[in-house]
Amino acid sequence: MVEEQHASRPGGRTARVRADVLAAVDAELAEHGYDGLTIDAVAARSGVHRTTLYRRWKTVPGLLVDLLRAGADDAWEPPDTGSLEGDLIAVNREVHAALTARPSVTQAVIAASFRTAEAADALTRFWEDRYARTALIVRRAVARGEVPADVDAQQLLLTATGPIYHQLVLLRQPMSRAEADHHARVAAATVC
Amino acid sequence: MVEEQHASRPGGRTARVRADVLAAVDAELAEHGYDGLTIDAVAARSGVHRTTLYRRWKTVPGLLVDLLRAGADDAWEPPDTGSLEGDLIAVNREVHAALTARPSVTQAVIAASFRTAEAADALTRFWEDRYARTALIVRRAVARGEVPADVDAQQLLLTATGPIYHQLVLLRQPMSRAEADHHARVAAATVC
Repeated sequence: MVEEQHASRPGGRTARVRADVLAAVDAELAEHGYDGLTIDAVAARSGVHRTTLYRRWKTVPGLLVDLLRAGADDAWEPPDTGSLEGDLIAVNREVHAALTARPSVTQAVIAASFRTAEAADALTRFWEDRYARTALIVRRAVARGEVPADVDAQQLLLTATGPIYHQLVLLRQPMSRAEADHHARVAAATVC
Repeated sequence: MVEEQHASRPGGRTARVRADVLAAVDAELAEHGYDGLTIDAVAARSGVHRTTLYRRWKTVPGLLVDLLRAGADDAWEPPDTGSLEGDLIAVNREVHAALTARPSVTQAVIAASFRTAEAADALTRFWEDRYARTALIVRRAVARGEVPADVDAQQLLLTATGPIYHQLVLLRQPMSRAEADHHARVAAATVC
């Protein structure tokens, strides 16, 4: 009964509609990519009326921007394995898994970011937030005395993750998980 | 006179028309990006009639694909500074300059590769060729005894160049030339 009341509060209902819509956007993107993402398909999959979609999200890019905003609001934390190398390997495996998933929402969102400035801005903000959170693994390594306090966290994370994005997204070539691990080890060796 | 004859041979004229057209594509891409690239604008800038453009290149993606093919045919060679670190710094400075040029043809071509499969395929082949040529700097380092013979050239080049592409193209954040140099030094230190 308490839950019923909670669920029927405007805020609760609004949040639930948003969650349903964004789950549908995610699934549609994964199945059909950005070119196949339509308001009608999101309405059909989410069960939310298209007039509601047009009122709250207005356009397909609007849906995508909100998906990235919701991603920035989530509770994601970087892995904590006890060593910088272990943490970087875990991060690289997350990146590798996201980019090699078939279908890959991440690849679809990246493609969308080259279509509309709104999606590009939202993706930039999403990654800024993710890289800022990931920097925690460097601060922990500093606290453990593993690396010097003046290590540039962004440069270190770029050494680890940059090669995976470049090979899989821009060069459009395969990369094994073992190679992703290699780039994490290279990054850790740079500063340890 | 010999030059006149040379210039009026069918092959010579065809090659000259192609060079004029591709120079116009390059300039239009740089000024207006992929969205602003039109057959009419290329015709106007190159002085080549639009019916010729439609006959030989058919579409805007066709023009872009030929621009990348011509790039793969050029005489580009990797820098030769006498050391692996020096060569990687020189490579990274070329990448950094291409991506930070305002306007940047490279950035426009990357964006186009997310619009049409033809452009994506052509860019993949262009980069395959470029990275294969750049591997010469690793073979020279092996020959000098600077690095072990079993170094993976592609992994090494990814460590150097991947972070620049990731930061400037996907994360859409600035990167200084000094930071690009840093990533070249990191890559060299990995194997030296």
